Amino acid sequence: MMSAEDIVRFSRDYDPQYFHVDAEAAKDSIFGGLVASGWHTATLTMRLLIEEGAPFADGVVGAGVDLSWPRPVRPGDSLRVEAEVVDIRASRSRKGRGVVTFLTTTKNQNGEAVQIQTAKLMVFSGERGVNQRALT
Amino acid sequence: MMSAEDIVRFSRDYDPQYFHVDAEAAKDSIFGGLVASGWHTATLTMRLLIEEGAPFADGVVGAGVDLSWPRPVRPGDSLRVEAEVVDIRASRSRKGRGVVTFLTTTKNQNGEAVQIQTAKLMVFSGERGVNQRALT
Repeated sequence: MMSAEDIVRFSRDYDPQYFHVDAEAAKDSIFGGLVASGWHTATLTMRLLIEEGAPFADGVVGAGVDLSWPRPVRPGDSLRVEAEVVDIRASRSRKGRGVVTFLTTTKNQNGEAVQIQTAKLMVFSGERGVNQRALT
Repeated sequence: MMSAEDIVRFSRDYDPQYFHVDAEAAKDSIFGGLVASGWHTATLTMRLLIEEGAPFADGVVGAGVDLSWPRPVRPGDSLRVEAEVVDIRASRSRKGRGVVTFLTTTKNQNGEAVQIQTAKLMVFSGERGVNQRALT
């Protein structure tokens, strides 16, 4: 669960805007209260993916990421991540490499999406002894 | 400057893959050594933007972000951010709102881009007493 303390601690280090670090002042913001930094949601999503074992044997190496935050995360929210491989392409120019398009949706306890992320991940096969499944 | 300790500390919390947390094991990764998590670069970029005073009076509220990491960040690298407003549109449906397209390039000490980010930011004007300049 995301606590107000968690939200403030992360934001002090990385995104110290008043609606992320000051619950009282945040009441007058467009959010009407304290909300988590989108970067906090993004990094927690990454941690959840790693902890739950994303299916890439040689690691999750992002070439590019497309992120949106349709709803804010508020104190007391619990987050979970749904992940789906939506496309897999072998590289034409570099043997044994490929790109996986990986869609993750981070949802709160009400099943509402708080982050939608489409990532292009580099995957490796063959000589590197890595997850062939990802390239076939 | 980004130290190996900084890279490992952040990654233990948010992106605990071996090439981000174990300098010795990282030598056998595709990076050939320890590298920072892309999320570390993204959050440091955000902090630099806030510290340097991004030109948005009511805060930097991202609706969506497009990120790429053309080169890894390694221990000893120093990062700086170049930012540019590339587009400004007033909302047709919601008076006093608009969307700014904000391009930031995070570069290392050699001037090489380590992160390119295009963000759609919500901006507010009028009744909220905010930066009109951003909407005109």
